[in-house]
Amino acid sequence: MTLLVVGSVALDSVSTPFGETADALGGSAVHFAVAASLLHPVQVVGVVGDDYPVGELDRLAGRGIDWSGVERVAGESFRWRGKYSYDLQSRETLETRLGVFADFRPRLPAGAENARFLFLGNIDPELQLDVLNQVKQPELVVCDTMNYWIQSKREALLTLLKRVDMLMVNDGEARELSGDWNIHRAGRWILDHGPERVVIKQGEFGALLIERDRTFHVPAYPLEEVFDPTGAGDAFAGGFMGYLARVGSVDTDHLRRAMVYGAAMGSWSVSGFDVKGFEGVTTADVEERVRHFVDLTHIPIAEQIS
Amino acid sequence: MTLLVVGSVALDSVSTPFGETADALGGSAVHFAVAASLLHPVQVVGVVGDDYPVGELDRLAGRGIDWSGVERVAGESFRWRGKYSYDLQSRETLETRLGVFADFRPRLPAGAENARFLFLGNIDPELQLDVLNQVKQPELVVCDTMNYWIQSKREALLTLLKRVDMLMVNDGEARELSGDWNIHRAGRWILDHGPERVVIKQGEFGALLIERDRTFHVPAYPLEEVFDPTGAGDAFAGGFMGYLARVGSVDTDHLRRAMVYGAAMGSWSVSGFDVKGFEGVTTADVEERVRHFVDLTHIPIAEQIS
Repeated sequence: MTLLVVGSVALDSVSTPFGETADALGGSAVHFAVAASLLHPVQVVGVVGDDYPVGELDRLAGRGIDWSGVERVAGESFRWRGKYSYDLQSRETLETRLGVFADFRPRLPAGAENARFLFLGNIDPELQLDVLNQVKQPELVVCDTMNYWIQSKREALLTLLKRVDMLMVNDGEARELSGDWNIHRAGRWILDHGPERVVIKQGEFGALLIERDRTFHVPAYPLEEVFDPTGAGDAFAGGFMGYLARVGSVDTDHLRRAMVYGAAMGSWSVSGFDVKGFEGVTTADVEERVRHFVDLTHIPIAEQIS
Repeated sequence: MTLLVVGSVALDSVSTPFGETADALGGSAVHFAVAASLLHPVQVVGVVGDDYPVGELDRLAGRGIDWSGVERVAGESFRWRGKYSYDLQSRETLETRLGVFADFRPRLPAGAENARFLFLGNIDPELQLDVLNQVKQPELVVCDTMNYWIQSKREALLTLLKRVDMLMVNDGEARELSGDWNIHRAGRWILDHGPERVVIKQGEFGALLIERDRTFHVPAYPLEEVFDPTGAGDAFAGGFMGYLARVGSVDTDHLRRAMVYGAAMGSWSVSGFDVKGFEGVTTADVEERVRHFVDLTHIPIAEQIS
């Protein structure tokens, strides 16, 4: 069950109340792949400039990440610089430099056209469509997006929505896309525009899986220390897709469990800068954290009281 | 298993984007009692002025609410006037008039000194202590508070905390009391100051039950329409305490279920102004909504993947 992701491979400079990084490993495809690879091998499609520390990517390759679909071209890598508020609840983008991403045309590595599980990370919806068109018979297509594309490429995004199984966005993006403040109505609006399901990530408040007739909620893992929220949503997606690719199923029970694997990955993502929160984390650690989620949310069944 | 609540019996004037009320039924004891009485009879201790529409209280008495502990004295009833933001996420207090509450000395109605379940609603911690001293052998004592008392009566509040089993507050109050922004550290701070357990309400994001070695999370019920958040926290407390009084138990399984009954009551509370969200709601409706919560949070057990 090949798992394929397309997204940014970036250099992030992040400032939080707890420290800062400069030109550190980042981008949606990187955060996704590091999390997903704890559960299943993953192929990455993207582009970097000749200034990228590819040695660091190679180091991560041992985890089961295939970077052969990441083109290396002359020029500057994609860079993002941002600063978080004291409570990590909001962030300001200080600088975005597209670099080699500006002229990126995705090309799939060998075998990737047969991918069964496809995650279209947060990039231009036209590029997301381009990748989707190259994959023959995906079993599950999930896409992410952000306010920038919602505003600047709305038509392409709506075209894409009709062709994906699931949209996975945060609450602010769901509101902006739908124009509705209520998160459950926003979810329904999205279902009315194509996807069969929508996942709405709510940061420290967990995530919702909204289907037409049923909703599932997973909380965030209780953490007393959070260092850097950057990439947590992509790590969530990586855990979600990695689990589904591993079990080779998209039935409702597995989707619910996939939400929990996503939330588990999100908890490690925020526990360190760039991808450091995942250092030393094993598949057994993931299993243990998933069991913790089961306890965290378990409602004991009781006799009827009425 | 007598259930006793002390708190405000007020006249609220509330403005939200969806409408407004003037001098409507409100106050922590009223919201608590209306919710709790769907599950168990409840005795209320409080005070009203001679301007209070006691006929409306009497109308609710049929539900199993005993108002005989609410004194009626000459003067003006407690009044609160507030306005919510467009998204209901924040509110501004426009006016608070203590009225007859300024000189209130709580006196328990006959039999209430034997109450087994005691909820100390959000009033002056010195009055909460006063009531606590009058109850002989309570099995479970839960108290609420607010920023006003955290700032103005901190010492009395800390004295009270040492004598209650559980503090039930919202996230902002937990942060202000503990001086810690992280909600899980704030919960631990509270546990270190007396209560064996703390419930932290998070509005549309649900609520946490934090114990020393275990945490439980219940989400809010998915609602596409919310009209007025006033009193939702007290309704939550009413569902929580009403369920425990009904089953006569405070073991961990029942506490978790009590959280779900609380969340269910919160969902009706926000669905109408003052206590109108509860009109027509039956105990069978409560059971059905509780089952819905079980589905909303259920993580299907799967084989180990590692």
